Amino acid sequence: MTYCVGLKLNRGLVFMSDTRTNAGLDNISTYRKMFTWSDEGETVITVMTAGNLATTQSVISMIDERNRAPSERHPAILQLPSMFQVAKYVGNTLREVIAQHAEEGQRAESYFNATIIVGGQVKGSEPRLFLIYPEGNFIEAGEDTPFLQIGEFKYGRPILVRAFDPAMSFEAAVKLLLVSFDSTIKANLSVGLPLDLQIYERDSLRKGVQRRIRGNDAYFQTISHGWGDALKQAFDSLPDLVF
Amino acid sequence: MTYCVGLKLNRGLVFMSDTRTNAGLDNISTYRKMFTWSDEGETVITVMTAGNLATTQSVISMIDERNRAPSERHPAILQLPSMFQVAKYVGNTLREVIAQHAEEGQRAESYFNATIIVGGQVKGSEPRLFLIYPEGNFIEAGEDTPFLQIGEFKYGRPILVRAFDPAMSFEAAVKLLLVSFDSTIKANLSVGLPLDLQIYERDSLRKGVQRRIRGNDAYFQTISHGWGDALKQAFDSLPDLVF
Repeated sequence: MTYCVGLKLNRGLVFMSDTRTNAGLDNISTYRKMFTWSDEGETVITVMTAGNLATTQSVISMIDERNRAPSERHPAILQLPSMFQVAKYVGNTLREVIAQHAEEGQRAESYFNATIIVGGQVKGSEPRLFLIYPEGNFIEAGEDTPFLQIGEFKYGRPILVRAFDPAMSFEAAVKLLLVSFDSTIKANLSVGLPLDLQIYERDSLRKGVQRRIRGNDAYFQTISHGWGDALKQAFDSLPDLVF
Repeated sequence: MTYCVGLKLNRGLVFMSDTRTNAGLDNISTYRKMFTWSDEGETVITVMTAGNLATTQSVISMIDERNRAPSERHPAILQLPSMFQVAKYVGNTLREVIAQHAEEGQRAESYFNATIIVGGQVKGSEPRLFLIYPEGNFIEAGEDTPFLQIGEFKYGRPILVRAFDPAMSFEAAVKLLLVSFDSTIKANLSVGLPLDLQIYERDSLRKGVQRRIRGNDAYFQTISHGWGDALKQAFDSLPDLVF
């Protein structure tokens, strides 16, 4: 499994993904699931992937145009006129890759599936955030649902539902994501450290803060331990039932 | 879906279940999923069910011996010498019911599946708590895992993992369960109010507090609203990341 979240804030976009992949419990690895392309002053795009690793790596390689010689690569994704076109492009690429490997019928098709979050900004329009399905179609984060999750999303969802606020600062958003990821990591072995973080500041049109958060990261430790205590205090502050 | 939790406290057992059943999103109903049998001074047993409603109702009817005339019913479940025997009995009943309806092969078998939590105390031994699988086998809650969940358990698990303490009072345990259920109800339409609560006090050998908690229950409202605020305060109390 995997856990990735994209937040759409008033100030911009925040992305976080874990790095654990597994083929069975006894075969786990660490792979990056977050990728950013930028053409400073023009376009910044971040993609996060969940699902079959061969599928997602293949999609990323195709977006990167790795079938060409390095000197001839000018990723088409950076030359599209809108984020809607970017989402369509990523969706079509994803569908093609799945179809290539799925000539054995529906069962294999489901086995090769993947889901993608893509967000960013193209000069002249708003920052936008999409969730792309294996079929290549997609939905967009909006005012009412300003965050998108893929992978093992259930454990970490309640805190997002309760505490997310589009007006929050990037610092608070990172804190929120760490709490959501920590809850998930504590409950599910298929989601694991380190975590990748990417912040995109609205209208900056350049890559923002990028950070890999490892298990020994001091801030992660503070949040992970502090959240347990804070949660207990919050819990104790509620009144008991009188029978 | 469904959500049921059984907690094993030092003071006894606490059970909570929701009441929503659904066959598709457009066909939802309210059914009790918690059942208690008691023979005062001898045995108290509570059963909670998740899964196919025809299967679970059939299991409860069989335990109730509803194939006999009312005057001739002396539920065998109350005459067993130990909770281990009770778990075996419930497990066998469950497996039989599933097998009856599943002559069409594995696919149907999975369709008719159900999972059960059973807990209680038989005079002369400790209170015990079991989770019974559709195959009829079961696991017991122990020191390291003192609570059991069935159904849509992921949303409500992080708070149980963080705040559960076997030494807690019944009042705190009910509060904890309400927070866990409220988080689940807010995230998943297949889990819904009202909730059923049953408390069994260790060595009392009689039914304890039984309560149905509806949406307009004042205490549930206090917890549901208060938890949102308490969580936000807890969240604000953690330090922000300095980039």
